[in-house]
Amino acid sequence: MARLITALEAGGPESLALLEALHPHAGDGYVIGVTGPPGSGKSTLVGRLTGLYRAQGREVGVLAVDPTSPYTGGAVLGDRVRMQAHALDRGVFLRSLATRGASGGLPRVIGSAVRALDAAGLDPVLIETAGVGQTELAVMEAADTIVVVLVPESGDAVQMLKAGLLEIADVFVVNKADREGAEALAADLEAVLGLVESEADRRPPVLLTEALHGRGVERVLEAVEEHRERQEDASRLAERRRARRRREFLDAVHDGLLSMLERQGESGDAMSEALSRVERGEVDPQVAASALLRDGTLLAPPGT
Amino acid sequence: MARLITALEAGGPESLALLEALHPHAGDGYVIGVTGPPGSGKSTLVGRLTGLYRAQGREVGVLAVDPTSPYTGGAVLGDRVRMQAHALDRGVFLRSLATRGASGGLPRVIGSAVRALDAAGLDPVLIETAGVGQTELAVMEAADTIVVVLVPESGDAVQMLKAGLLEIADVFVVNKADREGAEALAADLEAVLGLVESEADRRPPVLLTEALHGRGVERVLEAVEEHRERQEDASRLAERRRARRRREFLDAVHDGLLSMLERQGESGDAMSEALSRVERGEVDPQVAASALLRDGTLLAPPGT
Repeated sequence: MARLITALEAGGPESLALLEALHPHAGDGYVIGVTGPPGSGKSTLVGRLTGLYRAQGREVGVLAVDPTSPYTGGAVLGDRVRMQAHALDRGVFLRSLATRGASGGLPRVIGSAVRALDAAGLDPVLIETAGVGQTELAVMEAADTIVVVLVPESGDAVQMLKAGLLEIADVFVVNKADREGAEALAADLEAVLGLVESEADRRPPVLLTEALHGRGVERVLEAVEEHRERQEDASRLAERRRARRRREFLDAVHDGLLSMLERQGESGDAMSEALSRVERGEVDPQVAASALLRDGTLLAPPGT
Repeated sequence: MARLITALEAGGPESLALLEALHPHAGDGYVIGVTGPPGSGKSTLVGRLTGLYRAQGREVGVLAVDPTSPYTGGAVLGDRVRMQAHALDRGVFLRSLATRGASGGLPRVIGSAVRALDAAGLDPVLIETAGVGQTELAVMEAADTIVVVLVPESGDAVQMLKAGLLEIADVFVVNKADREGAEALAADLEAVLGLVESEADRRPPVLLTEALHGRGVERVLEAVEEHRERQEDASRLAERRRARRRREFLDAVHDGLLSMLERQGESGDAMSEALSRVERGEVDPQVAASALLRDGTLLAPPGT
């Protein structure tokens, strides 16, 4: 499994052949995203949820997306230090994925890795991010249910709004609930959510946990299950997955076209020349784009 | 001028020829964006600012971006009812642009229209949106200074954050300052801005106005001027404009490529077929994208 995911990360023809082979076996597993600011206890919560699912006899996949460490270094180390409780459990597969700065390519890698775990029968797959930002929000698009984990120290509801977390959350967890300010943060979140989402049945629940001691974690699992059922009843799950496939396809087409353009640019011809002239204001941007697209050589497939 | 902008709106070869002809004459004028929720008094403020600039002997262009009315109806009507004070002033050119639902194409149209007004010597050009949303934020990318207009009724600072207004504002105006809650909203905004932006010199000022009676409007004009000077001192204006040209160019390249793909889709072949199969889950999205891009016919220039 580890070698398979490494091959998928690399991209290129081999990864496409693997994705093609995986396709008939993937698609049934449930994907749960867990995101939130650094230090909110996401890893601990993911570990606890993993334990609960294992107790149900389910095999669990965990993808930890780590923005800081280069792939060959920290991400592998991360595998070792995370979730030590499950280190010897063959019913749990844990893999860290480093973002390597290539935020554009990361959703592709996440999508591939999720399908590999899914095809291997791991269900659910938990995806955990190390922080919150545009990249992490993009990663969460791979999830069927998104759990946002906060602590009193991570800032107020306004800052969460600014980070885009209120828009994506299906379940809110206020972790470290024994600390001062936890109840107030939960109340603030409820208040803001009441303003933002008028349909009560779509409003994400706000749950208090102490993941370190396992307190409140079963309720999180129930809330994820309730969200799954609500989505299935309203056909929203099928629609969410259809939209995800569509987006991944269009992203891949877009990325493929852009990388063709960039290769043109690197080879010192039309694209980079046009861009420089546009930036210097020597030519109208739309006129330059049109001229570039009219030029048949720009659109020739690579290697021809 | 009205005919010129209509021709630019239409796009296509004629508009590109016009942009090419305009290019040597455009680029010096200053562009001021005015946005905010419906009912905040943007049009009144724009009218007052126009009056102040006219009093300085400057010729002013105004683009009112209207999301609701179809182009041939409401937008033209809008021209008549807006800014009646300047209806007979030949030193003011006012044009309403309807978004016509095509949010993708609107930034292109705005960019073209701004360059037409700029090339004609209108300076500044004021761009006013009728509401706030993704489209309106995209429209504001054409502006050198962005003025966000709020009123107490338009919601609290949290909702403004959620709408993305705090991120884009260079100057805040709390209009209808005689109403209850105006001072409180201004104080809330100052507090939130203090959290968000640590560099005091980049923090947008929050100004109280009663645009209907002209109160406080001169201070808005000064704040725009101060923002322009701060940007010029730090070379940020040149950088902002360079980034805008770059974005417009890359958007145009991207749009051109997508419209080629869509034309392929409409003609019933590879693109639409691939998308349907991806949505139904019959094929891996990345595999489908790669196959599509490998197919040379997809990338042939249109009409060949």
